[in-house]
Amino acid sequence: MLHIEFITDLGAQVTVDVGSADKLLDVQRQYGRLGWTSGAVPGGGYQFPLDNESDFDWSLIGARKWTNPEGEDMVIHKGIAYRRRELEAVDSRKMKLPAAVKYSRGARGTDPEHVREKADGEFEYVTLVIFRGGKRQDRYATPGGSRAPQQAARPSAPRPQPVAAARPAPVAVVEDETPF
Amino acid sequence: MLHIEFITDLGAQVTVDVGSADKLLDVQRQYGRLGWTSGAVPGGGYQFPLDNESDFDWSLIGARKWTNPEGEDMVIHKGIAYRRRELEAVDSRKMKLPAAVKYSRGARGTDPEHVREKADGEFEYVTLVIFRGGKRQDRYATPGGSRAPQQAARPSAPRPQPVAAARPAPVAVVEDETPF
Amino acid sequence: MLHIEFITDLGAQVTVDVGSADKLLDVQRQYGRLGWTSGAVPGGGYQFPLDNESDFDWSLIGARKWTNPEGEDMVIHKGIAYRRRELEAVDSRKMKLPAAVKYSRGARGTDPEHVREKADGEFEYVTLVIFRGGKRQDRYATPGGSRAPQQAARPSAPRPQPVAAARPAPVAVVEDETPF
Amino acid sequence: MLHIEFITDLGAQVTVDVGSADKLLDVQRQYGRLGWTSGAVPGGGYQFPLDNESDFDWSLIGARKWTNPEGEDMVIHKGIAYRRRELEAVDSRKMKLPAAVKYSRGARGTDPEHVREKADGEFEYVTLVIFRGGKRQDRYATPGGSRAPQQAARPSAPRPQPVAAARPAPVAVVEDETPF
Amino acid sequence: MLHIEFITDLGAQVTVDVGSADKLLDVQRQYGRLGWTSGAVPGGGYQFPLDNESDFDWSLIGARKWTNPEGEDMVIHKGIAYRRRELEAVDSRKMKLPAAVKYSRGARGTDPEHVREKADGEFEYVTLVIFRGGKRQDRYATPGGSRAPQQAARPSAPRPQPVAAARPAPVAVVEDETPF
Repeated sequence: MLHIEFITDLGAQVTVDVGSADKLLDVQRQYGRLGWTSGAVPGGGYQFPLDNESDFDWSLIGARKWTNPEGEDMVIHKGIAYRRRELEAVDSRKMKLPAAVKYSRGARGTDPEHVREKADGEFEYVTLVIFRGGKRQDRYATPGGSRAPQQAARPSAPRPQPVAAARPAPVAVVEDETPF
Repeated sequence: MLHIEFITDLGAQVTVDVGSADKLLDVQRQYGRLGWTSGAVPGGGYQFPLDNESDFDWSLIGARKWTNPEGEDMVIHKGIAYRRRELEAVDSRKMKLPAAVKYSRGARGTDPEHVREKADGEFEYVTLVIFRGGKRQDRYATPGGSRAPQQAARPSAPRPQPVAAARPAPVAVVEDETPF
Repeated sequence: MLHIEFITDLGAQVTVDVGSADKLLDVQRQYGRLGWTSGAVPGGGYQFPLDNESDFDWSLIGARKWTNPEGEDMVIHKGIAYRRRELEAVDSRKMKLPAAVKYSRGARGTDPEHVREKADGEFEYVTLVIFRGGKRQDRYATPGGSRAPQQAARPSAPRPQPVAAARPAPVAVVEDETPF
Repeated sequence: MLHIEFITDLGAQVTVDVGSADKLLDVQRQYGRLGWTSGAVPGGGYQFPLDNESDFDWSLIGARKWTNPEGEDMVIHKGIAYRRRELEAVDSRKMKLPAAVKYSRGARGTDPEHVREKADGEFEYVTLVIFRGGKRQDRYATPGGSRAPQQAARPSAPRPQPVAAARPAPVAVVEDETPF
Repeated sequence: MLHIEFITDLGAQVTVDVGSADKLLDVQRQYGRLGWTSGAVPGGGYQFPLDNESDFDWSLIGARKWTNPEGEDMVIHKGIAYRRRELEAVDSRKMKLPAAVKYSRGARGTDPEHVREKADGEFEYVTLVIFRGGKRQDRYATPGGSRAPQQAARPSAPRPQPVAAARPAPVAVVEDETPF
């Protein structure tokens, strides 16, 4: 027998019994669809393989996709919106980083210190998930979901571009506006 | 089987077994009426749809309505009073925010850093709940409650007004006085 | 079924099963008499009605009464002594506060920031309980206890007195001496 | 039924079911002998009566006695060594403190702020246990243990001595060396 | 009955029931192979005997061995790579430290203060495990594993060498690149 601890959409601490380990992801999907989350977002954000981004099942982490009024791809997690950003691969003498897709938002006054990341200037941002490198894990996929549409939008080969441009530019105001 | 963790009105950590997921809100209401709370208030406060404000069931978060001696609408949560404030919609070139109702109080010396929000000047305040945007969720309503009286007082269409005036003005002294 | 989490007198984390909600206070009394505590002291201290002070059952929070060698009323909680102080009511233009009884001690080097309260000068103190206002709750009383003796000592009507004098004056040295 | 939460010698979080309250100390002894600990060391260290020092059962807090290569009495707790120090009674006009035995070590860079205590100069130290005052509790004793040998070494009546000398002098280097 | 709390590879908080204490390490191995961890890494890193390094079962702490593209020995823990470093014994007048093997990485912006260790200059690093001194514990070994290959690489007798060289030199960039 397993037991998984959630924070519900109402902020309550609730444990759910799970019959066996192979039922665990199903339970996470079931309650994640209600906005329940389990555990804290790791410092620097969740890390998943890039090949999981196109059909990632956001309910696994209690999040859901959302298109804002400007038509941008975003994700809602605990009532806060994160913007999708494509990071090109970096291949300089100083740093090698594979292409990635990152969901992040500008930092808010009540974010604790250890989740804030520095960007250029005085901007600080908070990452929910980074999809980078790795090998696709099918168990993270939306059951019955199609991978086709978004895959076209995935960042491809590294192109010569300044490192600064490859970093996410935090846009604080819009992201602070919670669509609930 | 589910298990919900509470902090009782005496500050004790108590877990209550719940038969099934659909009984959870009932259990939260039952113990919330005693002032028991589950989980921490999220940084920046709970977020609920504005249309839930008029008949929100405060027992869901272990709080209760209270009218102070001056006749003002307040809410008591863990022995501390929060004042009701109406925030008009903001629709400037820089920021778009829908109308909201906020329950907040002036910060106290023992409030941890991550719950304090800055207002104008040196004032700091703490938000318990913000009702803004969203779509009404009936399960948050007081069972059998009437929505009529307060709805008239809800902030309506945005009116031209300086942004500063739309922000809550913390009033520290009165709110520090706990009515228990 | 309920489950209450304690810190034992040996500092261990122990959960005790409780048959039903109406048995909870009995269990808190039973283990509280051994010095077991449940949950953290709230920032600013526990808050109880003033009318509960005379026969408060200190075992409910894992504490016990103690008279120090100088004959002063104190309370021991987790091996640390807190002194009883009477706070007269304040009724000035700036502030209205009902009479209260407070159990507090000078801050120690290892107290975390969020429990320290500032007094006049550089003194910092820590409050265990404040009894103020409210309506007596019989379930907080010592079973079979007499209310008579201490009630005479309760602060009565507000008398003209400077605000500063109404605040607790922390006496660090004596309180640091733990009688165990 | 009770349940006690341990941190194992491998750092894992493990809960053990205990049949009844009177079996609790046995379970703490059984797992404490493996180096398992329950709960955090209180700020300023555990406090026990001085009369328990001679035959204290260190397994109750997951620790064990150790004699270092220099023949000094030490205690290992979570892989870190604490040195035994005798503190004479202080009986000055400013402070009255009974004799004590303290197990402490120099602070390490990764010790959190709230466990560090200031000594003279810039030294900081961390206390595991202080045995001072109080009334012997037999249940803390090593089962079948002899009290004789160490009792001779216990600090006795207060002797005139400067206060500074009565305080522990942290010796950082040796204590940082973990004998495992 | 025992219960062990894990953080899963998806960051969820999950408790697993364990039939008896002697089954505990098996359960830790089983879930650790999936990247599940239990408890926090102790400040300064896990400590194990040096003689356990050659065939240490990394699944016990939810980690796994990894050889980076440059052919270096590394370990992946929670998606972050730690580099293997050999520390020669130090035997100076000021300090005596036995030989050790350390797995560490450069600090990242989101690492909390209490896990950061200072190196020379402004570098900060984070230690996952240090193998030093002690007596081999067979229960930490990979079941059926061979000890031969790596043992040759173990640091042997102390050689005269400056202390600074014996300390780990953090290499921030490469370690920040998560191979997942």
